[in-house]
Amino acid sequence: MRRFTFSKGHGTRNDFIIIDDQHGMHDLGPDVISAICDRRSGIGADGVLRVVRAQHVPEWTGDPDLWFMDYRNADGSIAEMCGNGLRVFARHLVNEQWVPTGDFTVATRAGLRRVLVARGGLISTSLGAVTISDEPVEVTHFGRRWPATAVDVGNPHAVVFVDDDTRSGLDLTKAPSWEPAQRFPHGTNIEFVSVREPGVLDMRVYERGSGETESCGTGVVASAAAHRAASGHTGPVVVHVRGGELTVEFDGREAWLTGPAVVFARGEFWWL
Amino acid sequence: MRRFTFSKGHGTRNDFIIIDDQHGMHDLGPDVISAICDRRSGIGADGVLRVVRAQHVPEWTGDPDLWFMDYRNADGSIAEMCGNGLRVFARHLVNEQWVPTGDFTVATRAGLRRVLVARGGLISTSLGAVTISDEPVEVTHFGRRWPATAVDVGNPHAVVFVDDDTRSGLDLTKAPSWEPAQRFPHGTNIEFVSVREPGVLDMRVYERGSGETESCGTGVVASAAAHRAASGHTGPVVVHVRGGELTVEFDGREAWLTGPAVVFARGEFWWL
Repeated sequence: MRRFTFSKGHGTRNDFIIIDDQHGMHDLGPDVISAICDRRSGIGADGVLRVVRAQHVPEWTGDPDLWFMDYRNADGSIAEMCGNGLRVFARHLVNEQWVPTGDFTVATRAGLRRVLVARGGLISTSLGAVTISDEPVEVTHFGRRWPATAVDVGNPHAVVFVDDDTRSGLDLTKAPSWEPAQRFPHGTNIEFVSVREPGVLDMRVYERGSGETESCGTGVVASAAAHRAASGHTGPVVVHVRGGELTVEFDGREAWLTGPAVVFARGEFWWL
Repeated sequence: MRRFTFSKGHGTRNDFIIIDDQHGMHDLGPDVISAICDRRSGIGADGVLRVVRAQHVPEWTGDPDLWFMDYRNADGSIAEMCGNGLRVFARHLVNEQWVPTGDFTVATRAGLRRVLVARGGLISTSLGAVTISDEPVEVTHFGRRWPATAVDVGNPHAVVFVDDDTRSGLDLTKAPSWEPAQRFPHGTNIEFVSVREPGVLDMRVYERGSGETESCGTGVVASAAAHRAASGHTGPVVVHVRGGELTVEFDGREAWLTGPAVVFARGEFWWL
């Protein structure tokens, strides 16, 4: 039997198990990750955030004293970045008083990410540069077809603007597809977005490999970027997703994502 | 903010939050139950098992020193009985050494239920009398139609025997229905069962109000009773469900259900 101390938190209903491992002593294989993330025979979460000092991460060559976000998907696979996970990770560091102020930097597999604790307990994080493609792409679903905007936020997105009724009525139990097929050889996340008014969006997302989810931080950023490009809007963009509300701001090409993040439980898990 | 100490366990992947409340001090309204059972913004479970001395349960008129299983569904509603929940409840009492031996009685809203800790750490519980109806009933689904056996295990069941391919190929994302409709005015649970050999069944279940689940203790008992009535088999009946394996034995009309039950986590939950 192995025993882990864990915390659990969520950001706009994207939920995470947090495992404290300051000294890099935990060997988290895919078997234990998938056991603790199982929603019935485990605690259940979309992924695991291992909290470790960067000096204990062999591939890290930067500042050894930073906290490193070792993010794993629920199946144990490694992912470079998770926008909602980064906020929950930051919330945990603040709760534990492991960072001296509300303005700090986290080490991730995608590089350094700056964090600011914002008004009302919200957390803002930089998500790096966003690139919008000019190449045409179309999304198709149940015989319908829409032009889409391809956006790169470190991972690929195809953003489709639709009216409110279309967005709310879509059946996303099946995956949409895109043309030309070779435009996203490794798949893409697809966002269906309707515009309430300039700077206020409603979004649903079909995540590559996961299906429809209640929130996707990089999808929110991609949608905000596509909206700015299409409308000329320059201010902050508020995006309503099923799991809550997020705000995107741009500093040049760099996106900042602001939203809630809470840690609501702590305990011990026995891997039997 | 309110703070609860909880444990989490499961029996054949039917999962439960356990809240210790020996002295009956916790007022668990539907709001806090549904918050802790939410699979993303809470710990997540099919229901809550409050562990309380029977003397603190106003409606209980029996032995005041028994442990009472106060079972709540994930939406906070009260349910009389849950077969998998009773095993997890019993496992917790044994783990905590709150019962002197492996043969004890638990108070429930459905009355007294005896528990035996069996070989290999499995737990056996009595589930009361089982009644098979002679009235004909048919189950229909996507245009197909099968004769069914109506079985009462304190809650209603309609058991359909099908071949192995039919059971494994069924689309249970939609609810089956039954005829005559008035046979189950408050709805019914529906089991699709194939017989591997006398005494060994494979079962899928569509639970009233929940959809397809990975296990249903009373559905397993209903299927075993219908199999005995149809085949003349008299020994134990092993039932394979998606979440694991359970065994049913009969002592006259009284059913005993035996299977695994584990508690695998403990912690604190903050209701923010």
